[in-house]
Amino acid sequence: MTGLIAVGAGLAVLTGVGAGIGIGIATSKASEAIARQPEAKGDINKALLLGCALAEATAIYGFVIAVLIILFLK
Amino acid sequence: MTGLIAVGAGLAVLTGVGAGIGIGIATSKASEAIARQPEAKGDINKALLLGCALAEATAIYGFVIAVLIILFLK
Amino acid sequence: MTGLIAVGAGLAVLTGVGAGIGIGIATSKASEAIARQPEAKGDINKALLLGCALAEATAIYGFVIAVLIILFLK
Amino acid sequence: MTGLIAVGAGLAVLTGVGAGIGIGIATSKASEAIARQPEAKGDINKALLLGCALAEATAIYGFVIAVLIILFLK
Amino acid sequence: MTGLIAVGAGLAVLTGVGAGIGIGIATSKASEAIARQPEAKGDINKALLLGCALAEATAIYGFVIAVLIILFLK
Amino acid sequence: MTGLIAVGAGLAVLTGVGAGIGIGIATSKASEAIARQPEAKGDINKALLLGCALAEATAIYGFVIAVLIILFLK
Amino acid sequence: MTGLIAVGAGLAVLTGVGAGIGIGIATSKASEAIARQPEAKGDINKALLLGCALAEATAIYGFVIAVLIILFLK
Amino acid sequence: MTGLIAVGAGLAVLTGVGAGIGIGIATSKASEAIARQPEAKGDINKALLLGCALAEATAIYGFVIAVLIILFLK
Amino acid sequence: MTGLIAVGAGLAVLTGVGAGIGIGIATSKASEAIARQPEAKGDINKALLLGCALAEATAIYGFVIAVLIILFLK
Amino acid sequence: MTGLIAVGAGLAVLTGVGAGIGIGIATSKASEAIARQPEAKGDINKALLLGCALAEATAIYGFVIAVLIILFLK
Amino acid sequence: MTGLIAVGAGLAVLTGVGAGIGIGIATSKASEAIARQPEAKGDINKALLLGCALAEATAIYGFVIAVLIILFLK
Amino acid sequence: MTGLIAVGAGLAVLTGVGAGIGIGIATSKASEAIARQPEAKGDINKALLLGCALAEATAIYGFVIAVLIILFLK
Amino acid sequence: MTGLIAVGAGLAVLTGVGAGIGIGIATSKASEAIARQPEAKGDINKALLLGCALAEATAIYGFVIAVLIILFLK
Amino acid sequence: MTGLIAVGAGLAVLTGVGAGIGIGIATSKASEAIARQPEAKGDINKALLLGCALAEATAIYGFVIAVLIILFLK
Repeated sequence: MTGLIAVGAGLAVLTGVGAGIGIGIATSKASEAIARQPEAKGDINKALLLGCALAEATAIYGFVIAVLIILFLK
Repeated sequence: MTGLIAVGAGLAVLTGVGAGIGIGIATSKASEAIARQPEAKGDINKALLLGCALAEATAIYGFVIAVLIILFLK
Repeated sequence: MTGLIAVGAGLAVLTGVGAGIGIGIATSKASEAIARQPEAKGDINKALLLGCALAEATAIYGFVIAVLIILFLK
Repeated sequence: MTGLIAVGAGLAVLTGVGAGIGIGIATSKASEAIARQPEAKGDINKALLLGCALAEATAIYGFVIAVLIILFLK
Repeated sequence: MTGLIAVGAGLAVLTGVGAGIGIGIATSKASEAIARQPEAKGDINKALLLGCALAEATAIYGFVIAVLIILFLK
Repeated sequence: MTGLIAVGAGLAVLTGVGAGIGIGIATSKASEAIARQPEAKGDINKALLLGCALAEATAIYGFVIAVLIILFLK
Repeated sequence: MTGLIAVGAGLAVLTGVGAGIGIGIATSKASEAIARQPEAKGDINKALLLGCALAEATAIYGFVIAVLIILFLK
Repeated sequence: MTGLIAVGAGLAVLTGVGAGIGIGIATSKASEAIARQPEAKGDINKALLLGCALAEATAIYGFVIAVLIILFLK
Repeated sequence: MTGLIAVGAGLAVLTGVGAGIGIGIATSKASEAIARQPEAKGDINKALLLGCALAEATAIYGFVIAVLIILFLK
Repeated sequence: MTGLIAVGAGLAVLTGVGAGIGIGIATSKASEAIARQPEAKGDINKALLLGCALAEATAIYGFVIAVLIILFLK
Repeated sequence: MTGLIAVGAGLAVLTGVGAGIGIGIATSKASEAIARQPEAKGDINKALLLGCALAEATAIYGFVIAVLIILFLK
Repeated sequence: MTGLIAVGAGLAVLTGVGAGIGIGIATSKASEAIARQPEAKGDINKALLLGCALAEATAIYGFVIAVLIILFLK
Repeated sequence: MTGLIAVGAGLAVLTGVGAGIGIGIATSKASEAIARQPEAKGDINKALLLGCALAEATAIYGFVIAVLIILFLK
Repeated sequence: MTGLIAVGAGLAVLTGVGAGIGIGIATSKASEAIARQPEAKGDINKALLLGCALAEATAIYGFVIAVLIILFLK
């Protein structure tokens, strides 16, 4: 059933929707925070990087599962 | 089942919905932040670029999986 | 199964929904920012263009996948 | 399967939902911005036009794919 | 399969949901803006007309596709 | 398949959901605006009428398509 | 297929959901506006009536289509 | 197909969901308005009654269609 | 098809979801209004009762239809 | 078809979701109102009880229908 | 059809979703209210208990129906 | 039908989604309340514990039903 | 039916969505609270830990059920 | 049924959507908090790390279940 495998891979990579919205929210407030307190930009960028890396990780989990589905279940 | 493969590829590229909304939110607050603190525009643009690049990446994961589905599972 | 291919292409191009909403949010706050700080309009427009271009890109991914589905999977 | 092709075309043109909401949000804040700073109306209108054109483009992608589905997959 | 064609046409014209909500949001803020700055009503009405015309266009795309589906795919 | 035709007509007229919510939002803010600036009621009513007419139009598109589906596809 | 006709009529009359919410939003703000500016109640009631009539119209479209489906497609 | 007729009647009466939420929103703001301006309670109650009656009407449309489905399509 | 009749009755009574949320919103603001203006509690309670009765009515429509479905379509 | 009867009973009792959220919203604002005006706690509690009883009733309608479905349609 | 019975029981107990969110909202505002007016904590706790008990009851309805489905319809 | 039993158990345990969000909302406001009034932390923690315990209970109902489904309906 | 078992396990572990959002909301307000009242960080962290542990528990219920489904129903 | 196994794995890894949004919300407020109180950045970062680790854990549960589904149920 190759067709349903494609559907499964498509569903898996949709995990990135959450990361895309989450990173956008984080970036929006971080740029607002830099405007309010420019001298704290180093600390804000560190927090932003930490959060974005962890959020991006959830998108990568989805990507990895999608690739696994295509390679292993074909 | 070529039809379900097309559905799978269509689902996969939908990952870009999150990135589209996320980048929009990030840009909206960044332009507001530049208006509030124009001299911090360099730092704000850096944070915006970082966030948008990571969010765009989630859309690209979806695009790559959609292309993989079309090429490998056909 | 030509019918499901059409459904797949229709799903793929729906990626533009996120970009449409995202660009609208970004534009709304950018025009507000220009009203608040008209002399920063150059920098605001640059940030707006950057964000809109990246968001538009996610819509184009969906468009490209929809065209690929129609051409390659027919 | 002509019926599913019609469903696919109907799904594709739904991309305009995002553009419709997005343009509405952008216009709402732009008219508010003009009321707050009437002398900046030229710059606000430029930003509004840029954003609306890009958002409208996502609706046009959906329209084009819907026409392609009706013409090519019939 | 005449039935699914009817479903497709019904889906296509649903594009107007976005335009309906979007035009409502735009009008709501425009009337608020006129109340705040009555002498700018000309400029506000121009922006409102521009946005509503573009949003209405997305509804018309859906209408056109629905008519095409009924006429061409019957 | 008369049953699916009925479902299609039912879907088509659902377009009015967007118009119903949109007109409600527009009216709510317009009545607030009249309370804030009663002497601008003429201009506010014009903007409200323009927006409501365009939003109502999207509901009418759905109504027309629903009637077309019932008459032509029966 | 009498069953699906019933489902179609049920879907059609659901158009009233939008009108129900929209009229509620309009009434809520209108009563707030009357409390803020009691002497403008005539003008506010006119705007409220205009908006509610147009929103109610969308519910009536759905009702008419539902009756048409029951009478003509039975 | 008696079963699907029951589903159709169940869907039709769901129209009341919008009216239920809409009446709740209208009542919430009306009671707030009475607290703010107790001497305007007559006018507020009139607006509330007008809105609630129109919203209730949408629920009654759904009820009527549900009864029609049960009686006429059985 | 007794099973689908049960599903239809279950759907019909779901109409109460809107009433449940609507009554909750109305009560929340009414208790806030009583706290702000305790001497207007009589008028607030009347408005609350009016709104809750009308919202409850939508839930009762759903209940009646559910009972009708169980009794008449069994 | 015992299975679908179970699904119908499960759907029916879901009516409690609206009551659960509505009672939560009402309680949240009522406790806030008591904190703001402790001497009005009697009147606030009466309004809260009235609203919660009516919202709870919608959940009980769902419960009754679910029991009826299990007993009468088995 | 044991499988669908399991699905029905699973649906029924989902009623707890509304109670979970509602109790969370009520608790959040109650703890805020205690912080604002610590000497009114007794009255706030009574209102919170009343609301939570009624919301919890909706979750228990779902639990009871789920147990009934498993025991009686097996 | 072991497969649908697994789906039913999966649905049942999803009840925890409401509890997860509800506990998060309650905790967020409680920590804000402690920051505003640190000396009332004992009372705030009691209210938080009460609410979280009741919300957690809804998740446990779902867990219990899921276990019952796996053990009794297998 | 091994396939539906996989779907059931996938549904079960989705319970973590609520916990993920809830913990994020709780953490966001807790970090805001620490910034407002740094000397209360011990008490805030205790409340945060309590809430996060209970929310995490709902995710673990889903994980346990998913593992049970894979092991016992295979 | 390899296809449904792929769908199940795709569903399971979607758990990361909640974590992605949650981490984004937490990071957004944490960077705002650092801007408001830069000297408390150590404590804010600790709370952020605690919350993000727990939220990330829910995404990892989904990832683990997805891998288990692919390996054990194939």
